[in-house]
Amino acid sequence: MSWLDEVPWNEHDLVAVVTQDFSSGRILTVAWMNREALQRTAQTNEAVYYSRSRKKLWRKGEESGYVQKVREVRIDCDADAILLKVEQVGGIACHTGRESCFYRKLDNGKWVEMDPVLKDPKLIYKK
Amino acid sequence: MSWLDEVPWNEHDLVAVVTQDFSSGRILTVAWMNREALQRTAQTNEAVYYSRSRKKLWRKGEESGYVQKVREVRIDCDADAILLKVEQVGGIACHTGRESCFYRKLDNGKWVEMDPVLKDPKLIYKK
Repeated sequence: MSWLDEVPWNEHDLVAVVTQDFSSGRILTVAWMNREALQRTAQTNEAVYYSRSRKKLWRKGEESGYVQKVREVRIDCDADAILLKVEQVGGIACHTGRESCFYRKLDNGKWVEMDPVLKDPKLIYKK
Repeated sequence: MSWLDEVPWNEHDLVAVVTQDFSSGRILTVAWMNREALQRTAQTNEAVYYSRSRKKLWRKGEESGYVQKVREVRIDCDADAILLKVEQVGGIACHTGRESCFYRKLDNGKWVEMDPVLKDPKLIYKK
């Protein structure tokens, strides 16, 4: 049996993937993979996700250059999730130009932006 | 508009929740919340999840005593997820008696257990 068969694929044949910066420990993104995305990620050691909106594979950083070099792939006991530990090239994982997608914090009943934009997205995405 | 309305609830009215140890930065669990679970979590500052298998709210640690004291609640830009930063009472988040549910790592095409069982689950769950 392949290690891929042990992944708890959901009813859409996807698994949730938490991606963590290997050095800082910061949670960068939560995204999805199908079987092919996970296989390619393991083969190439660069994160490949599945875009549910575009319905296709998506190599992280393919447009921005901010690829994720995979240092470790982990799986959890039963909750349908994969953990990637990565080196985030460029230090920016979020399409808003921030380090992490989790830049808003709950504060007195409001979601408050906590983290700076490190680079204008217009300068990141040329298309 | 309530902060709860800004959460990207999925088609089952749930949101994926990544829980991270506030001190060590370790990812402990990935679980799910419905609206009531998130509201209670914010009100009580202890993690309350929604169990998809048991179809009911589940206060983390209600049987084991290993509750999660919430230090921070974050939301991501668009990928349907919440991040909790917690103090994990007892240092055990996984029902297998380990610190984290992500105790298996991909190593040469196999999922290999990396982390020790800190306490026998039979001693954790009295029922």
